[in-house]
Amino acid sequence: MIAVDWGGSSLRVYRLDAGGAVVDRRRGEEGALACAGRYGKVLAAMIAGWDDPLVVLAGMVGARGGWIEVPYVRCPADADALAAGMLRLDASREAPGFGYRQFWCVPGIADRTSTTGDVMRGEETQIAGLLDALGGGTHTVCLPGTHSKWVQVRDGTITSLATAMTGELYALLRTHSILARGMAEGEPPLDEPAFDAGLACSDGGGSLLHDLFAVRTASLFGRFPAQVLPSFLSGMLIGHEVQFALAGLSTPVHLVGGDGLVGRYAHALRRRGVAVHRHPEELAAAGMFRLARARGLA
Amino acid sequence: MIAVDWGGSSLRVYRLDAGGAVVDRRRGEEGALACAGRYGKVLAAMIAGWDDPLVVLAGMVGARGGWIEVPYVRCPADADALAAGMLRLDASREAPGFGYRQFWCVPGIADRTSTTGDVMRGEETQIAGLLDALGGGTHTVCLPGTHSKWVQVRDGTITSLATAMTGELYALLRTHSILARGMAEGEPPLDEPAFDAGLACSDGGGSLLHDLFAVRTASLFGRFPAQVLPSFLSGMLIGHEVQFALAGLSTPVHLVGGDGLVGRYAHALRRRGVAVHRHPEELAAAGMFRLARARGLA
Repeated sequence: MIAVDWGGSSLRVYRLDAGGAVVDRRRGEEGALACAGRYGKVLAAMIAGWDDPLVVLAGMVGARGGWIEVPYVRCPADADALAAGMLRLDASREAPGFGYRQFWCVPGIADRTSTTGDVMRGEETQIAGLLDALGGGTHTVCLPGTHSKWVQVRDGTITSLATAMTGELYALLRTHSILARGMAEGEPPLDEPAFDAGLACSDGGGSLLHDLFAVRTASLFGRFPAQVLPSFLSGMLIGHEVQFALAGLSTPVHLVGGDGLVGRYAHALRRRGVAVHRHPEELAAAGMFRLARARGLA
Repeated sequence: MIAVDWGGSSLRVYRLDAGGAVVDRRRGEEGALACAGRYGKVLAAMIAGWDDPLVVLAGMVGARGGWIEVPYVRCPADADALAAGMLRLDASREAPGFGYRQFWCVPGIADRTSTTGDVMRGEETQIAGLLDALGGGTHTVCLPGTHSKWVQVRDGTITSLATAMTGELYALLRTHSILARGMAEGEPPLDEPAFDAGLACSDGGGSLLHDLFAVRTASLFGRFPAQVLPSFLSGMLIGHEVQFALAGLSTPVHLVGGDGLVGRYAHALRRRGVAVHRHPEELAAAGMFRLARARGLA
């Protein structure tokens, strides 16, 4: 089968063998938000040469305004509930060679246990890929990103989730705010001392709205040079996220994602005495395979 | 004399009589950050017809990269310390009729009592204008804005200050973030129930990074219509600012600024049982007059 992880700003496709192992992979730059009206064409180009009849999609491609809107499944939700929420998409006329394929899209998960509620779409496949390895008991999974997700899993069931807008805020402040003025352009490599100083800013449990201004004063007072200020800001935001997210959650924390960002979170967590387990973002493919089997497709 | 309150994105000029009372006022749209190389010309147009020989300036016009860089005075700082830090600016050749005038620029204040430190530039004139009314004892002054300032005053001396980037974050999130997607365009009037719901989000003392996502879910779940989401976001940010800023500060709180924004802060503070006193932003003119007298200019 083919697993398609189609987020708001990225597109990753995986080819899996009959046992669910990834045998090939490709990356695209066209996020689901930019593909309205041409999803079929973009996907056909990405999976050219792969003749597998089953295609499972996940991510913003299944959001309102996406290729197909797949309603959220409410938590508590296990793999069977997610599989039952999958919707079949008729894409037979969208590209040559699509006629013999079946397209299925995975639902996101909504947590309506609080007044505000919370949602995720796409990350649920990574959790699904992790469930068997987690086994019984209560587990905390963190998926860092533009919108980081902190997910509680109990005995194979997703029981709650919370989003932190850390990555998006970093990008906004990095490019559009007064804090950007003192910073070097581009994305310089991580500077560990500046990142640690940023983490330390959150130790007092104070206000992020206030702490952020320390990036400005660090520039004014010459505390850090321009090229390490992004690391200082990153540490401050991740430190704030981690400090608040940990309240009430079990440890260790399972981190899922790419090396760079997960490395920053692992460092922030270990600094607070929290053990971590790291897992690759390719879990999404394993999760889609698991859901396809639960649905009786694979 | 003429008092010039020249911030990063606004320009206000006041004409004062010999007793310091405001007899005329004008507003311009050209902030100090946009006037590099033509400060004299812009100011000449703003004060055309006013022949007063003394011109006192304050705000970002005196920052690094401004018309003249006036070094920060460190707190604790009283009116005499601020007056002593004023610098004279030679603007005689910048515009016709400038030759007979004296131009002086007020310094900002730096708080270096913490590792990160803090600064303000412009707001110190409003505090200076308030000092006599405050009298002895310990007082908390809040100046809401793009960068809100929370200032502690003891017996006529500014002892500490803290910045919250609330207004800037509101503008960033309102226009550039995923939260903007569900919002109506423009700046609709304040919706009190939505603003109160935003304030309530901060009651738990949780993470702003998480709470902000409630604006997204409120849109997804249809909790609020698009035109009241800006009020919900505003309440959330001001609620977070107020909750953290109050820690360790004396009450009541003196609020300085324009009616609309000060009204929101007054509501947020009263909701927490904190009494407020409101003061107009025109205090800046009174403060510049007071500093000019302390310096022996007026």
